[in-house]
Amino acid sequence: MLRGVLLDLAGVVYDGDTRIPGAAGAIRRLRAAGLAVRFVSNTTRSPRQTLVEQLAGFGIGVAGHELITPAAAAIAWLRLNKRTPLFVVHPKLRPEFEGLPFAGKPAVVVGDAGETFDYAVLNEAFRQLMAGADLVALANNRMFKDRDGLPSMDAGAFVAALEFASGVKATVIGKPASAFFQAALRDMGCAAPEVAMVGDDAESDVAGALSAGLGAALLVRTGKYRPGDEARFDPPPTAVVKDLAAAADWLLSDRA
Amino acid sequence: MLRGVLLDLAGVVYDGDTRIPGAAGAIRRLRAAGLAVRFVSNTTRSPRQTLVEQLAGFGIGVAGHELITPAAAAIAWLRLNKRTPLFVVHPKLRPEFEGLPFAGKPAVVVGDAGETFDYAVLNEAFRQLMAGADLVALANNRMFKDRDGLPSMDAGAFVAALEFASGVKATVIGKPASAFFQAALRDMGCAAPEVAMVGDDAESDVAGALSAGLGAALLVRTGKYRPGDEARFDPPPTAVVKDLAAAADWLLSDRA
Repeated sequence: MLRGVLLDLAGVVYDGDTRIPGAAGAIRRLRAAGLAVRFVSNTTRSPRQTLVEQLAGFGIGVAGHELITPAAAAIAWLRLNKRTPLFVVHPKLRPEFEGLPFAGKPAVVVGDAGETFDYAVLNEAFRQLMAGADLVALANNRMFKDRDGLPSMDAGAFVAALEFASGVKATVIGKPASAFFQAALRDMGCAAPEVAMVGDDAESDVAGALSAGLGAALLVRTGKYRPGDEARFDPPPTAVVKDLAAAADWLLSDRA
Repeated sequence: MLRGVLLDLAGVVYDGDTRIPGAAGAIRRLRAAGLAVRFVSNTTRSPRQTLVEQLAGFGIGVAGHELITPAAAAIAWLRLNKRTPLFVVHPKLRPEFEGLPFAGKPAVVVGDAGETFDYAVLNEAFRQLMAGADLVALANNRMFKDRDGLPSMDAGAFVAALEFASGVKATVIGKPASAFFQAALRDMGCAAPEVAMVGDDAESDVAGALSAGLGAALLVRTGKYRPGDEARFDPPPTAVVKDLAAAADWLLSDRA
């Protein structure tokens, strides 16, 4: 029995600065059917408050705790593991990390630093890793659909660069880490088999959710979806649908 | 019977701007013993003529053809495979590639671009790969010993980033590619088992040379060498010696 739904944001609810047609209505229908809805995003360019405001601008009201972000999960990880972070993240994300205690073994925290990735920044992180620091990846995505409609390299590429050069393996905080999906399940008070995921990334949204034990994972053909994605990763999606509106139809079809 | 020796440059003959003590004398002794000497470097920050001048400044006379560089091998590859190159290389290396025909399927050519690596440059290369370009790596090294004495990320890290994001596997031109060692053997007129390699990189110099069939590969404890390197890669070095002078002693010991 379906009790909750996890939604990716970029490529599912909006695309750049534009709401995907039918997305706001789909979210209203899911909620009206009594389903818990949470948003699990690997976006590491914007702080949580910016995302809440962006969604409000699209007519979608979301409480802060309903947004499950890698930054929040990374703060929990750094506190639990008592690490001093060195951040390689987008300047806009820095305020999320303010007030952290800085004591203990160092950890390099890598997000999608966007245009602020350059040789000097990455090399400083590399040197910290060579001196014994841990490597924490906020996200490990290969690419995202950029504002010009073309794919752009995401944080995972820079995680791969640091892993290759240093030989240090990253701990991934965001999707597809099972712990990230479980943080959303805890907030909903649902068990994994009672929840479905909807995303445009066949690897981190779909295969990640199914590996974490979720009952279903739908791949939408919006955002960065490319034909053939459904066959590229294991496990494959439960279903492939046109967009979030079609995903809501699919999820609500046995409740008619 | 030993007939020739291949020497790495950075970390073996010199370290940053400094000649490694005993290096010039060792090269003289190897040549005086009738051995063919060639230099196989993955350095992709300097054109061949700069390397010749740098070695002359250290009192080591080298003819251009005795320097086997990834740029020269890449030009041969691009001509043979009829590719239009998009270069992600150090500005100083660009003149090496002038006059190439630009026709055929595109190929992204990545070297150690140093401080010119930034998000915009890498993302343009990534987009070319997503549009179907091939990926050619001048070198695939993890790190080099920088002028401040600390390790810095080398071209291989950026090759790993592009491979991860795009899913396109790179063709490696420089060490440890067997074809690169074979280009040096052809220039010497020697068979692989008649030649020994001396390097500070247990992976690309030592394991690469032995995989290419060379008779021996010595690892020196200068340059980027770190204790334990001899056990990190397969096959392991034939011997581990203090520096190039000790390597010459080892290679010439049965000629006394």
